[in-house]
Amino acid sequence: MKTQICIIGGGPSGLMLSQLLDRKGIETIVLEKHSREYVLGRIRAGVLEHGFAELMREAGCGARMDAEGEIHDGFEISDNGVLRRVDLKRHSGGSSVVVYGQTELTRDLYDARAAAGGHVIHNVEDVVLHDLNTEGKPWVTYRDGDEIVRIDCDYVIGADGFHGVSRKSIPADVLTEYEKLYPFGWLGVLSRTKPVNPELIYAKSDRGFALCSLRSQVLSRYYIQVPLSDKVEDWSDEAFWDELKARLPDEVAARLEAGPSIEKSIAPLRSFVTEPMRWGSLFLAGDAAHIVPPTGARGLNSAASDIYYLYHAMMDHYLKGDDTGLEQYSQKALARVWKAQRFSWWMTSLLHRFPETPGYDQKLQETELAYLFSSDVALASLAENYVGLPF
Amino acid sequence: MKTQICIIGGGPSGLMLSQLLDRKGIETIVLEKHSREYVLGRIRAGVLEHGFAELMREAGCGARMDAEGEIHDGFEISDNGVLRRVDLKRHSGGSSVVVYGQTELTRDLYDARAAAGGHVIHNVEDVVLHDLNTEGKPWVTYRDGDEIVRIDCDYVIGADGFHGVSRKSIPADVLTEYEKLYPFGWLGVLSRTKPVNPELIYAKSDRGFALCSLRSQVLSRYYIQVPLSDKVEDWSDEAFWDELKARLPDEVAARLEAGPSIEKSIAPLRSFVTEPMRWGSLFLAGDAAHIVPPTGARGLNSAASDIYYLYHAMMDHYLKGDDTGLEQYSQKALARVWKAQRFSWWMTSLLHRFPETPGYDQKLQETELAYLFSSDVALASLAENYVGLPF
Repeated sequence: MKTQICIIGGGPSGLMLSQLLDRKGIETIVLEKHSREYVLGRIRAGVLEHGFAELMREAGCGARMDAEGEIHDGFEISDNGVLRRVDLKRHSGGSSVVVYGQTELTRDLYDARAAAGGHVIHNVEDVVLHDLNTEGKPWVTYRDGDEIVRIDCDYVIGADGFHGVSRKSIPADVLTEYEKLYPFGWLGVLSRTKPVNPELIYAKSDRGFALCSLRSQVLSRYYIQVPLSDKVEDWSDEAFWDELKARLPDEVAARLEAGPSIEKSIAPLRSFVTEPMRWGSLFLAGDAAHIVPPTGARGLNSAASDIYYLYHAMMDHYLKGDDTGLEQYSQKALARVWKAQRFSWWMTSLLHRFPETPGYDQKLQETELAYLFSSDVALASLAENYVGLPF
Repeated sequence: MKTQICIIGGGPSGLMLSQLLDRKGIETIVLEKHSREYVLGRIRAGVLEHGFAELMREAGCGARMDAEGEIHDGFEISDNGVLRRVDLKRHSGGSSVVVYGQTELTRDLYDARAAAGGHVIHNVEDVVLHDLNTEGKPWVTYRDGDEIVRIDCDYVIGADGFHGVSRKSIPADVLTEYEKLYPFGWLGVLSRTKPVNPELIYAKSDRGFALCSLRSQVLSRYYIQVPLSDKVEDWSDEAFWDELKARLPDEVAARLEAGPSIEKSIAPLRSFVTEPMRWGSLFLAGDAAHIVPPTGARGLNSAASDIYYLYHAMMDHYLKGDDTGLEQYSQKALARVWKAQRFSWWMTSLLHRFPETPGYDQKLQETELAYLFSSDVALASLAENYVGLPF
């Protein structure tokens, strides 16, 4: 087979780029290791920044998001039981975020690709990237049963996540990896209950951090900070709800509707960036190149700018013969990636309990929150990062 | 002797409070361990925030400051040789700072106290504070030659610095002390040369931090970050100038006028706060209760809010019979003190080289600076802290 751009990974980033480029007449093939059902079964983020929602609309996939997604103009921060609202719309000068589950969004993108006759090939095994940094053009192979299939292309997009083959195809001595591990994880529960609050609640408590999030008005997503040594089987549903309520303001805990967990898991919190994001004809995007802790809802949004820059770079290349965007991709993408890393680190540091932290640093953490709510410009800085910095 | 308020410490904080209260008819005696010449010989800060300058004017001591001090509407940050200006006036909504040496300011306060016939007693030895937290009123003794002098009063103000007797008069089990030490110091040089730049330059460099400051247009004050193990005798004037120039942008280094050092010393960088700031009839103010690293020019300014709160609390007590201000002093003063601590820590972290820091955190540091200069609201947050948060 032959195409212009071979996209490794059929998650939201890969599908979005494929859909955007297709509408400009640029050919893509998307290779996904898993089945469509598997990809749609993954429980992921639900908060989309302003710019990501705009990209969905530009991709022609915004209709259901705009009809069913919820516009959130703010969120709450609870500081040991005291609730204060961050008015995102006011402090960002009119922007907001959209709460729309990643599963729904991915389904919309799959539907759009199918409607346009796009090539999204599932269950591909043994993907290998070839000639990424040679004089010739790159090519990609995968195994389909006993057969090895070859795809010739101009460029390869690595949108296959942290564990994918793309980043690993770059020689180790070319990459610099930056990583920060946090001394705790998040225990998350999905439950088919009415969310306790119309907006998200980020709760700082002496017992540890908690987050009340949601996917829709009938699907709640709650998290509590837990030690990394905890195992999910140690946590009964009842123990989870009790601990969650103990970290929330009394009036919120009182109205919290507990229910059976549909999904329950513990995820470590990690910050990770690899540089550069381009090697020859391979361009990394999203989790393949960078991971953030979930505190500031940057995960999918951090991928959005990569997709935006690649979309424009490929348009410039194919439609105008201008390669500036391709040449500047790594630098531009990383500049914004690091700002999202900074914000995620800041939100994580602001709200979690760091048991080993010296007294002075704990006071600094308390002061950061006190300063935030005393300063319109500090709130504006939070807001511009949360709704998404400009691409 | 008898007075209403006995102030321990004849530095700028103690003198300022004495002067302010005197103008409202409230009696004070100031006890200073050193001679006037010694106090005036100390080389200290030169950047006064907006609110501090206002207090000087309210104390009737602003005339020479307003005539000879320099209004600075901004400063420069150099990032490995690239200069960018922080427009304080624009980003703070019209505020600025005044560059006026602490020596000059202290001289003005001494002159004002003398003109008003104020009691400022120098060279007092063996100061002891008595009955600070009993039913009766407090009293203070000191030794004058062979004689022990007793002062009876209503309140004692501890404005005698980090090493003074006031904080040490509070039982250790009453106080909580918070401290952060930085793994470097500042080597400072005062020289009778024309300052290299009309505004301050804060320089971040791979070789370490440097600061170009000034006391007047003929008196320069420069600093470079050095390891704590360095000794001042290891640094010749020539070595200092060479290292300073190497950390500055080429065009700044080229016009730097080197000269003999009038004063040269190494100071460690330390953050320190003690809580509470009131014990019985003793009220701590300034360095007696808190120290900041000099990076954000908060030292004297952090004392200004203490003085402001004490001034108003004493007026309310003596002129209105209202003790709310006295009762809330510790809490109100500490709230602002911690914000100044936060800002000083942030400026210090932003600009210094931390050799032991992991790669990820070094990238965060670079990103903090990149984000700062990409965001009007981040610059506004810096500016509101640098010119001084509201009292």
